[in-house]
Formats: sequence, structure tokens, C-alpha cells
Amino acid sequence: MASAPSVSSSITVRLELPARSTAVSELTHAIEHAGAIVTALDVTASGVDRLQVDVTCATRGGDHVPEVIASLRALSGVSIGKVSDRTFLMHLGGKLRVESKVPIRNRDDLSLVYTPGVARVCQAIAENPEDARRLTIKRNTVAVVTDGSAVLGLGNLGPLAAMPVMEGKAALFKRFADIDAFPICLDTQDVDEIVETVIRIAPVFAGINLEDIGAPRCFQVEERLREALDIPVFHDDQHGTAIVTLAALTNALKVVGKDISQVKIVMSGAGAAGTAILKLMLAAGAHDVVVCDIDGVVHPARTGLPENLHWTAKNTNPRGITGTLKEALAGADVFVGVSAPGILNGADIATMAPDAVVFAMANPVPEVDPVEAAQHATVVATGRSDFANQINNVLAFPGVFRGLLDAQSKTIDTKMLLAAAQALAGVVTDSERNAAYIVPSVFHPDVSAVVAKAVHDAAVAAAV
Amino acid sequence: MASAPSVSSSITVRLELPARSTAVSELTHAIEHAGAIVTALDVTASGVDRLQVDVTCATRGGDHVPEVIASLRALSGVSIGKVSDRTFLMHLGGKLRVESKVPIRNRDDLSLVYTPGVARVCQAIAENPEDARRLTIKRNTVAVVTDGSAVLGLGNLGPLAAMPVMEGKAALFKRFADIDAFPICLDTQDVDEIVETVIRIAPVFAGINLEDIGAPRCFQVEERLREALDIPVFHDDQHGTAIVTLAALTNALKVVGKDISQVKIVMSGAGAAGTAILKLMLAAGAHDVVVCDIDGVVHPARTGLPENLHWTAKNTNPRGITGTLKEALAGADVFVGVSAPGILNGADIATMAPDAVVFAMANPVPEVDPVEAAQHATVVATGRSDFANQINNVLAFPGVFRGLLDAQSKTIDTKMLLAAAQALAGVVTDSERNAAYIVPSVFHPDVSAVVAKAVHDAAVAAAV
Repeated sequence: MASAPSVSSSITVRLELPARSTAVSELTHAIEHAGAIVTALDVTASGVDRLQVDVTCATRGGDHVPEVIASLRALSGVSIGKVSDRTFLMHLGGKLRVESKVPIRNRDDLSLVYTPGVARVCQAIAENPEDARRLTIKRNTVAVVTDGSAVLGLGNLGPLAAMPVMEGKAALFKRFADIDAFPICLDTQDVDEIVETVIRIAPVFAGINLEDIGAPRCFQVEERLREALDIPVFHDDQHGTAIVTLAALTNALKVVGKDISQVKIVMSGAGAAGTAILKLMLAAGAHDVVVCDIDGVVHPARTGLPENLHWTAKNTNPRGITGTLKEALAGADVFVGVSAPGILNGADIATMAPDAVVFAMANPVPEVDPVEAAQHATVVATGRSDFANQINNVLAFPGVFRGLLDAQSKTIDTKMLLAAAQALAGVVTDSERNAAYIVPSVFHPDVSAVVAKAVHDAAVAAAV
Repeated sequence: MASAPSVSSSITVRLELPARSTAVSELTHAIEHAGAIVTALDVTASGVDRLQVDVTCATRGGDHVPEVIASLRALSGVSIGKVSDRTFLMHLGGKLRVESKVPIRNRDDLSLVYTPGVARVCQAIAENPEDARRLTIKRNTVAVVTDGSAVLGLGNLGPLAAMPVMEGKAALFKRFADIDAFPICLDTQDVDEIVETVIRIAPVFAGINLEDIGAPRCFQVEERLREALDIPVFHDDQHGTAIVTLAALTNALKVVGKDISQVKIVMSGAGAAGTAILKLMLAAGAHDVVVCDIDGVVHPARTGLPENLHWTAKNTNPRGITGTLKEALAGADVFVGVSAPGILNGADIATMAPDAVVFAMANPVPEVDPVEAAQHATVVATGRSDFANQINNVLAFPGVFRGLLDAQSKTIDTKMLLAAAQALAGVVTDSERNAAYIVPSVFHPDVSAVVAKAVHDAAVAAAV
């Protein structure tokens, strides 16, 4: 799969060149010739015989940038100035700010916002702690918590290097659900210490979003925090992915006219996301799921089966099959991959049942080339934004938390996750749904509110 | 000292009364008769024979509110509707919000702010951790940390009830120094746990502001965090108070023409604020300081002297006096009180040296009535906003942290605190300075920038 130029790897080059009539067209040609895409061009200064130009272009990233610059250097009379990276420019100084919601213009304002007025508000909360949800930021505030141990697909980068992701997540919380989220990047990767620390900082927050914490630590952290805290704890890498996957599967099965309780599902990947997807599919009525990891099909008799797969072995694979992923795939209706790049090819997909559904969500390179898969499967989805049917967590977590916060929920349970998935699936109407449109765009204006409503109602029902 | 009506105890009353020509004047008279002050009045609806009025008035708080309502009820034909508290209205929903600094309008934006673009930013920080100060919110972000053990003068209210103060503090950080501050209210009051927790959440922050943590815990917490962290740790209740007190003292001594190294200073209060003020005055050149606590003068031979006063006993009281606060006060040039309400009267102040300076900072009720004190002292200051010379921490902490952040300082030391105090004192010019103007208003436009510059320069010098 050849990588295409991406705006996420855009550069802006300031250069000067002779003011000949073909100057700009030579420039754009040089960039296109190098395989990049011009996205903006400004002549920022002009003299009698020289032009100064700022040109922005999308590259394939990495080694491609020097290639593009070399192509520009070959222009007659050019001089290359500053080359800046648009992504880094956007991240300069970070992506969040904390603002005051109240004016502080004079002594009277100060006496209301701070001392002496604030004392009465403190006393009211001391007398009735539930008032904290009314009189403080708690009711709309979520902690985005990481230990930096599994940052995107990049691995254990630590808490500082995880910050750009956590800030981005907080920015998405604001953009899509008007939630005030704040990054908590922990300088520890010990389960006990993570749990203790989150418990101790919890008073300020009405929800905890765990993020980019490696397996199996993430399971223990989530379980123990859910027991200890009276606010919902949600590991987005698990449950956010599961909600969007189930929503997409629901619509994909409608497209091919199959029933979730009847289909044969093969999964590749038994990590955090895989296990959460598995459990939510089972809760939604799936019966015949076969899970594979790097050593093939998970079944109770497999020698050396890791302890964390015992539950999976017991609760899946009702036909008791054994062997490799490829063997399991033959005749399957659905493939769900959250594992590794390029482990399948078109021929493998061709062995699946007619009207197959393929979700190849390894990122950035899917389990199977989606173009190749589409030659043999009816519905294909990936985690990428440059193909149809992107399985993107942004479809779920903002609405999920909006619903939880609005319901002042103290917990989150499987019914709420199912409600979120069903609501998300329902955003795609019967008349819109087709093989290339099983999930809405993340910018679809209804997504967050529809998911929030469903989760809110399920949370209120659970609290009764 | 009779308490005056305060806007921080304002109520808004919705009422209806007959539309007679004297209606509004009867209403305002009733409020004034009850001792409250009308600050706003709106006729919100009017019929042929009834007026609906929203009237806002400043009360003395507490029992005064029912008195004001009773006075209104006595009006002929009145019907009282909703009574709301303006302070509580302002705090509804909390006082902070977290905003995204970057636009997220479309997929291209998303690819820059979040995946895949963000991955390169994470990798850059993983390779060079110092880049976190360039590419994340770290460089402008401060944690406002409390354990809720000493909230204002209200005592141990716990972390939830402390939130309104911490949010207010964060709002002040924004208003006066454009710093992004976030409240961390800890569900523990154990020194080890507080220290551990702050160390673990420190990666996101470029500074730690400790707030409303009781003594002696606050000393240990601060000392251990300063040793463990590579960002400055500042306990505002100690050092903020000390900076503003020293600045005020500097100007007060100029007003009376005395030198800090020559004056006799008597302090009442040996807690967190008192000890910090003491140490900063000594660092600024004070020699003759006598500290008193509830048991009188602190001196090495005092029986049962608490361990935390051993340092004070060794480093103060060069004339080796003993006895009570009142005895110590005779002949003193300066009184600094951070202790308890009403422990001195005018006659006590009259025993001080000519041109005495009295800082009575117990809050809300000072050690001596400032009006009475002013009959015998030349300069009088309090912590209250309704008298001249308010010693208010807002004059210090925003600029202090602005300077520390701008210098990317890893520490804070006494030289920086002294620089802040000197800079703050210098905001009051020679031509402005007088007995009623020894510190600038917190809304003086130069304060934060001047303090920041001084702290920045001292921090840069310390780092060399």
C-alpha cells in the first residue's frame, strides 16, 4: 500500500526566486514532480527581479521532505529559506488553555469570586458534598489519564511525550461535547501507584478517561478504579473502540442482510481493544466468535495459552476449531482485526463466506489492504481517514461522557456501552446506509448528542 | 468593629407589590431601613395594578438576610418571590473552563491536532524531553494543589469544599498573569501521600502552587517536593503573604523614615505565614524581631517550647526578652500580626515607639481595630479590602509564577522572593507613597509584569 501525501505531514517553505513569468508554475511543478501536493501558496514580497514565496505542501513525511526540498533547490536561481513543519507549528505552546468563566474587573467581582464571598460557597459544599456538582467545575470536568506506556502505536514513550495526545483528546472532548477535559500524565507505570494517584485526584472530576495505558495493566487499573470511585471510569482504547466497532458491525450486517446472532466472526487481536470488542459483540448477541492471536486460534486446549486469554478461550469458539487465523477465516462472515499490519491478503478474504464484512483496523497499516479486500468482501472498514468507513473513537467518547455527565452517573456499565453503539449506528439512516457508509463522519452534527442521549437514558435507568 | 454590608453577601429578591406611586421608594426605604444597601433594581414586569421588581442588595450576610426579607414583607400588599444569592449564582457550574487553542473544523485539522500528525510531535518529545516546554501546555501550566486541610480561615473542610477557592485562585492566575492553572484537590491529608501524588502528576506542569494546606504538614510537603521536582514549588499562604508583607513594610518604613536593619519588630503568630514572613524579613536585613505565639514571647528558655519553634527561638529575639505579646510591644517600631482577632487595643498600640507601623492581618477580624490603631500608629495595614493598605496575596503570586515560567525556572529561592518584594514595593512611586498607600491596588496595571520581570531576572541569574 503506497503512502499518499498527507496534510498531517505538511511543510511550509519560504523561498526566493527570480521574478520570471514562469516562476510560480515552475515552483508548483517542482513540488508535484517530487510527489508532494501544494495546499497553499502566497507571494509574500515582490521586488523588481525577485519574488518571495511561502508555499505549503502535503508530503509523505520522513524522507520525503528532503526530496521535496531537493526538487525545489534544482530550480534556477532559487534560494531556500526557512522550512517549517505545519504540525509542529500547530502544537507550539500546547493545544489547551484554562479560562475563567467569571469576570474579575474590580474589587466587588474579586469579593464574589474569591475571598470573602467564596467562603460561603465552601461551607455549603462542606455541609452537602453533593453540591460540588452544582457549585464547582466538577460536573463538567473529565481527567484524561495516561501513564504513557502505550502512546498511539508508538509504544512506551512516557508521560511527557504522551502529552500531545492527551491534549488533543481534551481538545476533542471540548469540540464535540463541550466537556472540560484536562490531561493527567502520570510519572509512574505501576498499577498500584496509578490507581492510588487517580483516587487521590478524583475529587475535581466527574469522570475518568483512561488513555494509552498498555495491557494488561489497563484492565487492572480500570477494574480497581471502578470499584474505588463514585464517578465513571472509561478506558477509551477498549470501550470507545468497541462501541464504534459494534455500531459499524450493526450497520454492515444490515447492508449484507445477516443477523449478528447467526454470523461467524473471526477476530485477530486479543489485546485491550480486541477483548473489549469481543465482550461487547457477545453482549450484543454474537454467538460464534473465534479469536486469534499471533499463535493462532484461541481455544482451551492450546498449549501455553496465556492466563489473560483463559476467559476468551472459555467464552468463544463454540465450534471448538483450532489452527491458524487463515484457516479460521475460511467460511467466516465477519473479520475484525485489531492486531498487526499486512497479515492477510486478498486470497485470504476470498475464502470467507459470500457478502463478507472485513474490519481491518490495525493503524496506520491495516491487516489487509482495503482495496484488495474490497475485491472479495462486500463491506470493508479500516481505522484510516483516507478510506471509506473509518472506525474512529471520536465517534463515541465525547457523546458517551456527555451522557454520563448529564446523568451525573456514578458508574458506566455494558448496557450504556450497548446503548451508545446502537445510537451511533442509528445516526446512519436506512436511506443513507450502504457498503461505503456504515458509520457517520466524525463531523456529522448529530453524533455526539444522539450518543449522549442514549447513554444518559441508560445511566438514569441504571441508577434507579 | 461593626460589620458593613458587602457585595460578597448580595441577594436578589423578586417581589410583586401594588403599583402605587410610592412603590419603588417604599421598597428601597425598607431595604435601607434594614441596614442593607440597594445595588440594582429592575422593574421586570408591570400590570395595571401590580409591579414585578428584581432588587439586588448588599447585606451583612448570615442572619441579616432574614432581617432584610422581614423588612420587605412588612410592605403593604407585597408578595415575595424567589430570593437568590448573587455569590452562589456566580459560582454555579464552577468558575473555570478548558478551551482548545486549535481549530478542529475538518479532517485536515483533525489529522494535525490528533492522529496521525500528533505522533511526530510525541516522538520529538520522546527524543528530547525538554521539547515538552515548547510543544505542550507545560510551559504555561501551574497546578493549584490543596488537601483541603486549612481552607481560608474555615479549617479542615476537605478537598471538595476547597474547590471554590482553588478555582478562584486559578481564575486569578489567568486574570493577572495569563497563566493556565488547574485545581488539584487531593483526597488525602497524609504528607507522604500528598508528596507522592504531586510528584506523579508533575509532568504536565511547569510549577506547583500549594494552597490551604495546614501547618506543619505544609512545610514538609513543600520541602520534599522542592527536593524531588525539577519545577518550582511555592506555598502561597507562606511566601505570597511574606512577599506582600515585606513590600508593604519596605514602603511603610520609607514613610516613617526608619531602616529595616534598625527597627524593633514584634510579630504575633508563628504558623505557616508568620514563619515565612519572619524568614523573609530576616533575609531582607531585619535584625531585631521578637516572635510571639499564644503563650507569649518565643525564646530558647521558654518551658515546653514546641519543636517547630526551635529555629525561631534560635534566630530571633537578640535582646533575649521574655513575657507577653503586650509587654514585647512596648517601644517596638513595627507590629506584624498573622494570628487572632482582637488581641490588642489602642492602648497597646500607644505603648509602641513614635511613628509606629501596625500590620494587623488576621482575617476577617484583625488583631486590633485598624481605626483604633490609627489613632496611635502612623501606618496601619490589614488583610481587608475595606481599609487602606490591604496586604493581599494577589499582588504577588501571579507575577511570581509568570516570572518563574518565563525563565523556565526549575526552582524558587529566597533571592527570587526578595526580588519580588522589592519590585512590588517599587510599583508605588516616591510621589505616590504615603501612610495610606504603601501597596498598590491589585488592579494596578503594572503589578504583575513588574514582579514577573524581577523574578524572571533573579531566576535566570540563579540558573547560571
